[in-house]
Amino acid sequence: MSKNTVWVDFETLENFMVDAFVGVGVPEEDAMICADVLIAADKRGIDTHGVGRLKTIYYDRIKKGIQSPVTQFEIIKDSLATAVVDGHNGMGQVIAKKAMDLTIEKAKKYGMGMVVARNSTHYGIAGYYTLMAAEAGMIGITGTNARPSVAPTFGVENMFGTNPLTFSMPSDEEFPFFLDCATSMVQRGKIELYDRAEKEIPEGWVIGADGKAMTNPNQILEAFQKGKAALVPLGGIGEETAGYKGYGYATVVEILSAALQGGKFLKMLSGMEDGKKVPINLGHFFIAINISSFIDLETFKKTTGDILRTLRSAKKAPGAEKIYTAGEKEYLTWLDRKDKGAPINKNLQQQLLEIKKELNLEKYDFPF
Amino acid sequence: MSKNTVWVDFETLENFMVDAFVGVGVPEEDAMICADVLIAADKRGIDTHGVGRLKTIYYDRIKKGIQSPVTQFEIIKDSLATAVVDGHNGMGQVIAKKAMDLTIEKAKKYGMGMVVARNSTHYGIAGYYTLMAAEAGMIGITGTNARPSVAPTFGVENMFGTNPLTFSMPSDEEFPFFLDCATSMVQRGKIELYDRAEKEIPEGWVIGADGKAMTNPNQILEAFQKGKAALVPLGGIGEETAGYKGYGYATVVEILSAALQGGKFLKMLSGMEDGKKVPINLGHFFIAINISSFIDLETFKKTTGDILRTLRSAKKAPGAEKIYTAGEKEYLTWLDRKDKGAPINKNLQQQLLEIKKELNLEKYDFPF
Repeated sequence: MSKNTVWVDFETLENFMVDAFVGVGVPEEDAMICADVLIAADKRGIDTHGVGRLKTIYYDRIKKGIQSPVTQFEIIKDSLATAVVDGHNGMGQVIAKKAMDLTIEKAKKYGMGMVVARNSTHYGIAGYYTLMAAEAGMIGITGTNARPSVAPTFGVENMFGTNPLTFSMPSDEEFPFFLDCATSMVQRGKIELYDRAEKEIPEGWVIGADGKAMTNPNQILEAFQKGKAALVPLGGIGEETAGYKGYGYATVVEILSAALQGGKFLKMLSGMEDGKKVPINLGHFFIAINISSFIDLETFKKTTGDILRTLRSAKKAPGAEKIYTAGEKEYLTWLDRKDKGAPINKNLQQQLLEIKKELNLEKYDFPF
Repeated sequence: MSKNTVWVDFETLENFMVDAFVGVGVPEEDAMICADVLIAADKRGIDTHGVGRLKTIYYDRIKKGIQSPVTQFEIIKDSLATAVVDGHNGMGQVIAKKAMDLTIEKAKKYGMGMVVARNSTHYGIAGYYTLMAAEAGMIGITGTNARPSVAPTFGVENMFGTNPLTFSMPSDEEFPFFLDCATSMVQRGKIELYDRAEKEIPEGWVIGADGKAMTNPNQILEAFQKGKAALVPLGGIGEETAGYKGYGYATVVEILSAALQGGKFLKMLSGMEDGKKVPINLGHFFIAINISSFIDLETFKKTTGDILRTLRSAKKAPGAEKIYTAGEKEYLTWLDRKDKGAPINKNLQQQLLEIKKELNLEKYDFPF
C-alpha cells in the first residue's frame, strides 16, 4: 500500500458513483445499480473492478458516446426457461442485473433458467450476478467474453478475453461459496501492480512473440500495446502444465457468450475500428439453478458447508498458515474493510477529483 | 508404444466387452451401453478410460459384489426442468446414459434441463454424455466426483477426485467442440505412463507431504499408496500460478455432484471401509441446453465453427506446428485409429485373456 493511499468509506464512494453516473446521463435507478455493482467489488477487495474503473471504463466512455447511459433492455426471444436479451450498448451492469433477475424468475418457475445478453458492455465483477442467485437460494453461474488479451495454447497472439467462468453456491456459513475468476492465469491489472512495485512477474503469466515467458512488467506493458505479448490461459504456456485446459474453458466461455446470441467474438471485441474507439458489443450468459427443485435448501447448504469445512481441515503443507475455500478471502477482506472503506491511491484520487470538478459535486469532501 | 502392443479392431473389442459384461450378469441391453461408453474412449485415444478399465474397474468389482450388474434406475424427484435419480450402485454408464437421456428430454421441453445422480459408480468418459447432447443439437455439460486423489491449494492431503468439468458444443465442422478434462493438472494414469517409460515427471503435477513437487514417478506411486503424495489442481502448487482456480473449479464439481442429491463427498468416496472395498457412491450432474430455444441451430454451429477456426489461425509460437481446439486431437486420433483399432499392451492382453478363459469366450481369436 503506497503512503499516498487513503481510505474512503463505502457509503461516500457509492453515493459519489451514483452522482457521477447520473451526471453523465444515467437514470438514477440505473445509476444505483451501476454503483452497487462497483462498490461490491471494492468491498471484497477486487480493486481492479471497483471504483477504480469508474472514470476510465464508464464515465469517459459515456462522455465519448461509446456506450449509452440510458439502457434499453430488450427481450428479443423468450422461451420457457430461456431468453435472449439485447442491451443496445447501454450500461453493462444494468443489462446484467436485469438479465439475472429474469434468469432467477425462470429458475423459480422451471427449476433452472438461462439468459444470454447481446450488445452489452463491461458488467463489472461477474460474481455480483452469481451472488444474486445465491441470495435467492440458487446456484448462480455466469461468464462473459472480453477484449482480446489471451493467447491460445501454442499461439502468441491475443485472441480472447480473460473470460471469467464464475460460480456461487449458498452454504450454511457466513458467506457463500464464491469463485469469481478469469480463465487466464492472471489479468492485466496484476501485471500493472508488479510494474508499480518494480518486481519481476513469475514465469508463465505472459508469453512473448518468441513463444517464451516474459517476466519484466514494464517491457510486458509496452509489448501489450504493440501486440507483441499476450496473457496465458490457466495452466500455463504449452501443454506440459495443462494450459490447454484453461484454453478450453476460455473457449467454452467465448462460445456460450457469443454463439447463443449470434454476436461478435474474439478479435472483433477490441472496441476499436479504424483507430477509433467503438462499442465493444460484449456477450454474457447467466444460469440459475433452483436448489429446492432438487433438495431441501437447508440440506444443500449444510452439505456445501461440510464440503468447505472438510477441505479447510486437510493436512496443510509445512509452512502454510491456512487452507482457504473460494469466497473466503473476499469475506475476510470485507470484515477488514467494512469499517474503513476502500483504499484510494494517488492516481484514483486524481480521477475522482476530476469528476467532482466536472460535475460540481461540491458536497463530497474527500480526505485528499 | 511398446513392441508387445498389438492393435485390435473396435468391433471385436466392443463385442468382447458386451459378452464380458453379460457374463457377469449385466443385462444385454445395459451391457451394450457399457461397452459403447468404453469403446468411445478408445476410439478417441482416451486410453485411460476404455477397454483398459474393463477388468479392474468393472468386471472385478461386479464379481466381488461391490457394484451391481443390474441397474435399478430410480427417479426419486422429478420437477419440470430438473430431476434427481438414484442408481443404487448399478452400472455407472447405464445410470449416466439414462440420466442424460432424461436431461435432453427436459431440455427439449423447457429449453434446458439438469439431472443429478446419486449412488452411482464410475461412468467412463464424462464426454460420452456431453456428446449425446451435442448430437441432439444441444450444449452438454457434466461432471462427477471421484476417489480422493487431489490436494487443495496449500494442502498436501488427497481430498477430492480429479473431478472433470466437461463440455460439448455442436459446430459446423466434422467434429463438435469437446472439452473432456479433469480439473487437476493430470490424472494418475499419466504418472503410470511416465513410470513405465522411466521418465521424470514435470514439477507441479504432484505434491509431497513436505509441500514440495515430486518428480520421480516410481516414488510417487509408492507415496500415493501411503497417502504421502497428492495430485495438484489445474494451475499448480500454491497460488502463484493460480492453482486456487483449478482448486475452485474442482470444488464446484464436488458441490454440484454431491450437494444437490444429498450424497457422499470428498474422503467418503474412497471406496474403502475398515480395509474392505465398498460401493463408492459417486454423484454426477448433467446439464443440457437446447440451442434452438435461443437461436437457429445452424447459426450457432457456424458461429462456433468460426470461433474455433479463428483460434486455430492465431499467430503460432515459433516452432509450434499447429494450434488445436478442444476435441480436435480426439478427432484426429479417431481418423488414425478407425481402420486399425485400439492399442492393447501386454498387461491388458493378459486381463482380456483371463476374462476370455473365465467366461469361455472361445469365439474371440485375439492376435495375442
